Amino acid sequence: MKKLVKNAYILTMEQEIDGRLCPPFLGEILIEADKIQAVGAHLSQQEIARAEIIDGKDCLVMPGLVNTHGHAAMSLLRGYGDDLPLNTWLFERVFPVEDKMTPEDVYWGSMVSICEMLKSGTTCFSDMYFFADALAEAVKETGIRANISRCIDHSAVKLKESCDFYTKWQGAAAGRITACLSPHSPYLCPPDFLQEMVQEAKRLGTFLNIHVAETQSEQADYLEKYGKRQVEKLGEIGFFEVPVLGAHLVHVSEAEISILAEYGVAVAHDPRSNLKLGNGIAPITKMLDKGILISIGTDSSCSNNNLDMFEEMRIAALLQKGLTGNPTVLPAGEVLTFATVNGAKALHLEQEIGTLSPGKKADMIFVDLNQLHMQPGHDKISDLVYAANGSNVKTMLVNGECLMKDYQLLHIDEERVIAEARKSAQRIVSK
Amino acid sequence: MKKLVKNAYILTMEQEIDGRLCPPFLGEILIEADKIQAVGAHLSQQEIARAEIIDGKDCLVMPGLVNTHGHAAMSLLRGYGDDLPLNTWLFERVFPVEDKMTPEDVYWGSMVSICEMLKSGTTCFSDMYFFADALAEAVKETGIRANISRCIDHSAVKLKESCDFYTKWQGAAAGRITACLSPHSPYLCPPDFLQEMVQEAKRLGTFLNIHVAETQSEQADYLEKYGKRQVEKLGEIGFFEVPVLGAHLVHVSEAEISILAEYGVAVAHDPRSNLKLGNGIAPITKMLDKGILISIGTDSSCSNNNLDMFEEMRIAALLQKGLTGNPTVLPAGEVLTFATVNGAKALHLEQEIGTLSPGKKADMIFVDLNQLHMQPGHDKISDLVYAANGSNVKTMLVNGECLMKDYQLLHIDEERVIAEARKSAQRIVSK
Repeated sequence: MKKLVKNAYILTMEQEIDGRLCPPFLGEILIEADKIQAVGAHLSQQEIARAEIIDGKDCLVMPGLVNTHGHAAMSLLRGYGDDLPLNTWLFERVFPVEDKMTPEDVYWGSMVSICEMLKSGTTCFSDMYFFADALAEAVKETGIRANISRCIDHSAVKLKESCDFYTKWQGAAAGRITACLSPHSPYLCPPDFLQEMVQEAKRLGTFLNIHVAETQSEQADYLEKYGKRQVEKLGEIGFFEVPVLGAHLVHVSEAEISILAEYGVAVAHDPRSNLKLGNGIAPITKMLDKGILISIGTDSSCSNNNLDMFEEMRIAALLQKGLTGNPTVLPAGEVLTFATVNGAKALHLEQEIGTLSPGKKADMIFVDLNQLHMQPGHDKISDLVYAANGSNVKTMLVNGECLMKDYQLLHIDEERVIAEARKSAQRIVSK
Repeated sequence: MKKLVKNAYILTMEQEIDGRLCPPFLGEILIEADKIQAVGAHLSQQEIARAEIIDGKDCLVMPGLVNTHGHAAMSLLRGYGDDLPLNTWLFERVFPVEDKMTPEDVYWGSMVSICEMLKSGTTCFSDMYFFADALAEAVKETGIRANISRCIDHSAVKLKESCDFYTKWQGAAAGRITACLSPHSPYLCPPDFLQEMVQEAKRLGTFLNIHVAETQSEQADYLEKYGKRQVEKLGEIGFFEVPVLGAHLVHVSEAEISILAEYGVAVAHDPRSNLKLGNGIAPITKMLDKGILISIGTDSSCSNNNLDMFEEMRIAALLQKGLTGNPTVLPAGEVLTFATVNGAKALHLEQEIGTLSPGKKADMIFVDLNQLHMQPGHDKISDLVYAANGSNVKTMLVNGECLMKDYQLLHIDEERVIAEARKSAQRIVSK
């Protein structure tokens, strides 16, 4: 049965000829199976006959948000070791606990994150972690869309697992699951191993997802060890011969920004995580000046500590305004593009998602315009970025299926997810 | 009839001997009329006989948040002129619209903001604007607590109005309303006028609330005109002979920080507004090193654009970590203190509010710990600052009266407030 969204303000995230976003308009969206069939002010009676109506009154309907960097299972560690020095946090809190995690823990941690993402408007996310099969199962069951990879350090065994994961899951769950390869970082994966991963990525026809230049000390150590900064070295060894999504990129020189631009590397900007860990602010306006594709990630709720992409968009915009002293940079429409259109491009899903366009997958969120902090509504695009948060998301669809309606997840037992995640969390932090 | 809060985790915001916050504990709070009578793990049966029970299951109960800088009526301008250069925004958007505002507009704009604040956990706010009587009426009706002043530039007439407002409203609405005097800023109020205001403040026995050093250009212009930076000049002319609450203080030198410390000036830190307008980041850690009292303000939703104090606390903490490169600065408990205990001190209400202590006013909020982004709950204080937002606030009391229960405002017609505010907003932005 077809579905028809009615009475909603529709923000397609398509651009007009001058590059500006098409403004929101009151209209309708017709959905057939997993795809958008038509979008318009008034669809013809013929088209909408016998469609199931989804009332969008007092809502703005827009493409679901795309979170391009995270580690869903780490919600089990939310609040476990905040306000500590980076190394104390990593070596005394995160790593010992991760050592105790089982696939079941990864499953329940991922379930909490997926539920949180769905309820706060994220319809697609990128994830790199271990026990990736457990995450993939959670994605399959919950109905969300994800790009998943088994994140690895220098290990031939893990590289094999990683490729096997790709082969097993790429295109699974009616196409909602895609995969890629993820070397953790230049500092955990030496150049020759990264070159091997490039060959595997070429063989599989996929892209690489990697942490780069997150901390100042990591860049300094790398320079001392390899005589080059991370991005320079990656360029030199041919790492960018395949498409790359780089997370963080906080400490990059002008020369490194030029290299990223030259090779078309996509950036997953994680502003809150970068601040919270004391790493600083990525030079996003400089990257934009060079034409680099910027997308937005929350990182894990262990370093952020929530997965609210509205808040992440807002902070991304505010930080660059504050950093540059220029309130006109990163205007609301551009940041919304980061979190939708650019997120889709960064994950090589731009044919499928990112805009509300006929032929694309029906991934969309209904943002409640009636909440107090959305008043009086002079500029809906501005309100989305500067005032809204995840709690504005009332209803959402992924792949044409309604996963949340009137603030309630339809197919997930949220109470059980919370109870099981608490059990896992207690177990892994106990001595 | 007495009220008894049961089954809640209680965070009193009182300190232990070592200066750390008393950790949350499962307990009870007994309320008699407008005051807290007792707080403890188990109150005696005798004390709680015949009390009305307020169930706090799955909630953390803490003092209501205190927002020390804002302009409530400006919610009418939310989203009206974002992403513009500062002067275009001020001279082409804000000022022309403010010229058209009537007391009725100020009333409805304030009502929207008060409802938003109540729903997001703010029980007390500081406000400086014009048509202050209209705001005071809104405060009186809604049950929230506020410190209000008629914000003025260089005008004897306005100073008179300002003092009359103080006399009329100080202590009104069962003590929920207090007042003070507010010169807008050093650049709109010349030194001799500020000295006159100091004399009036002394006469009335109140404090001064003022914007200081918000933008770099305002400091530069001031230096050129007066040969001194703003805080230096204020010190020189005796402005700090009465207690002062200074908002922003983004562009202050080391010498100015020393002056603020010497005179015990309280700071209203407005991190999101400062970023959004391109003004930068106030040197909060340096101020803390000198022992300056830091409180948190949202500024108006015209420059922020919401009044969510949870998000404001979070950004305050994250920014200083990012700015200093040190993830241990502004730990969660300290930032919570800014938004409760220090807010109360900044408004000279520390005898009344700021902690959940016997004898203080019963101003408290119930934060829902069952939401997904609060899982698994390793550290409730951390979760409050780094994960929660205003949508976690389920129930709240001000002055012993329950104003919101189970996410619903009890005494306010929210739909009417929204409708009237939209009407006002439309009128004032029309040509």
